[in-house]
Amino acid sequence: MDTVVKLLDNPADAITDALRGLAAIHPELSVNLEQHVVSRADDRRPGKVGLVSGGGSGHEPLHAGFVGLGMLDAAACGEVFTSPVPDQVLAATRAAADGAGVVHVVKNYTGDVMNFRMAAELADDEDVAVETVLVDDDVAVSGSTYTAGRRGTGGTLFVEKILGAAAEQGMGLADVAALGRDVVAASRSFGVAVSPCTTPGSDKPGFDLAPGEMELGIGIHGEPGRRRVRVPDGELAREIARTSVAAIADDMPVDDQDLILLVNGMGGTPLLELQVLAGDVVSELTGRGGRIARALVGNYVTSLEMAGSMVSVCRATPQLLDLWDAPVRTPALRWRA
Amino acid sequence: MDTVVKLLDNPADAITDALRGLAAIHPELSVNLEQHVVSRADDRRPGKVGLVSGGGSGHEPLHAGFVGLGMLDAAACGEVFTSPVPDQVLAATRAAADGAGVVHVVKNYTGDVMNFRMAAELADDEDVAVETVLVDDDVAVSGSTYTAGRRGTGGTLFVEKILGAAAEQGMGLADVAALGRDVVAASRSFGVAVSPCTTPGSDKPGFDLAPGEMELGIGIHGEPGRRRVRVPDGELAREIARTSVAAIADDMPVDDQDLILLVNGMGGTPLLELQVLAGDVVSELTGRGGRIARALVGNYVTSLEMAGSMVSVCRATPQLLDLWDAPVRTPALRWRA
Repeated sequence: MDTVVKLLDNPADAITDALRGLAAIHPELSVNLEQHVVSRADDRRPGKVGLVSGGGSGHEPLHAGFVGLGMLDAAACGEVFTSPVPDQVLAATRAAADGAGVVHVVKNYTGDVMNFRMAAELADDEDVAVETVLVDDDVAVSGSTYTAGRRGTGGTLFVEKILGAAAEQGMGLADVAALGRDVVAASRSFGVAVSPCTTPGSDKPGFDLAPGEMELGIGIHGEPGRRRVRVPDGELAREIARTSVAAIADDMPVDDQDLILLVNGMGGTPLLELQVLAGDVVSELTGRGGRIARALVGNYVTSLEMAGSMVSVCRATPQLLDLWDAPVRTPALRWRA
Repeated sequence: MDTVVKLLDNPADAITDALRGLAAIHPELSVNLEQHVVSRADDRRPGKVGLVSGGGSGHEPLHAGFVGLGMLDAAACGEVFTSPVPDQVLAATRAAADGAGVVHVVKNYTGDVMNFRMAAELADDEDVAVETVLVDDDVAVSGSTYTAGRRGTGGTLFVEKILGAAAEQGMGLADVAALGRDVVAASRSFGVAVSPCTTPGSDKPGFDLAPGEMELGIGIHGEPGRRRVRVPDGELAREIARTSVAAIADDMPVDDQDLILLVNGMGGTPLLELQVLAGDVVSELTGRGGRIARALVGNYVTSLEMAGSMVSVCRATPQLLDLWDAPVRTPALRWRA
């Protein structure tokens, strides 16, 4: 495979340069180019619980693109596919702290869990109370290259949107954290890759995928899933929809449920194809008695230029739907009720 | 080059299936699966000028993803990279007609121009007055595989957003069309490809691009640009920014101007890279004395999974900025003032 051409200036500076670009076009964000921390520069409600997330870069718009009114107060951006260090998370926590404590939304990868925990302890030393919500929504595998237990993937978007709205409305620290655990418990994801991705500065993909093969249950760093199969000759989107929805529904019933649906692109798959897949996913879910209450289709939790998809589903109560619908104003998600 | 794996069910049904998916997740849209026409199903202001666009598919979210309050009333979706036929455009025109006439926003490609003109004549027979706004913002080349004169590309987004707001506010037919011509006159674009794209059902890319080469001035169907060059060893994003902004500024001064900026991905380039490019584009423009009044970064006018970028710039008057900021609620653009 040929080396992928990257629209970068210097691979070693990719994150700094990307954050400089984010700052240049989003004056409503405050970007710390030393620490790689993005936070809200607009007015926050005094005494609001702070909401912080972060993780390795390469999943844009997650997380920095979700900073803003009604979602995250700050995000710590690690190097590509590498957890941010505790000092970065601490800086994000400080930026988000406003006297009512801070919730950390942490995707379940070993490095992230460890570094967010250390940052929480450092914050505690500064009298900032931190609660942690661990996201482990990926049903594909339990334990992989990067993690013990299930991985945190597309469901992170549900958690960040819903907790962001709850915090904006004045919910207290313990309640926001408890709500976060409820959202995690109601969320499931399953991903598929049809081509790999290459990290900046590397001269080959992070994993091999022979032409005509696809990886079912792929992780967002390209880590292995459940199995590798031949791409079928026809109805590929339907096959992916069937496999993804079956994996989710085997783990969490979707019948007679209001669902928030994310049909997510991994970065390199065009929207035309995501729309085809979305149609198939909706029929699979409704065929199982689920009701699509809300849906998003696009590139939200990505793996650089990987081609493929992730289906994420959240079983939504009326409270969760209200919070989902609440106003949000971030680079990647923006709406008003 | 290996065949690109497409997340489709049947390449021949790609557009129908994609529109079925769009309908499944956007109940606020009315989707005609026979004619491949997408229109607003929500309430429209009575007596509003209708706004219609369309063109070949493969550029998603353009145009169907821009249907909704404050933007298009209807879009006609041709086959991939193929103009919609007059009957489709007529169906879209009927869906958008509400007694005050209809404006056609047409990208300047030979097939589109001809088919929209025929549809306008058919609409006239039905006593629907049609005005046409021809978009030819691409400074790269004058005349190419698909067109006589300049091509219509990224600037189409500016035209559709601004005219959509004007129509929503009650502006009359002739004035909306005249405003559209002003926006076209104030808009310029320049694109670059670092990898090609393959249309559904084809077994090879629409054009060849040797590894390590890039096409400067690429069209949104992969048609040739100004020249093909070696990808530089470093500072690729800066080189693309410099070349794109120079091509634009040579054609239309940007100094001492308020600018609306679109740093657009061609479909296969990850957001991390588009953000790096955006930072470089902003410094090139501000270095020439331009002021970034508004900016969008992401995949808005694409070429399937092509990797690369398009920079589009609109010189904005206070009126254009007000219309840009006006509420919009479509699948791909959504905000409130």
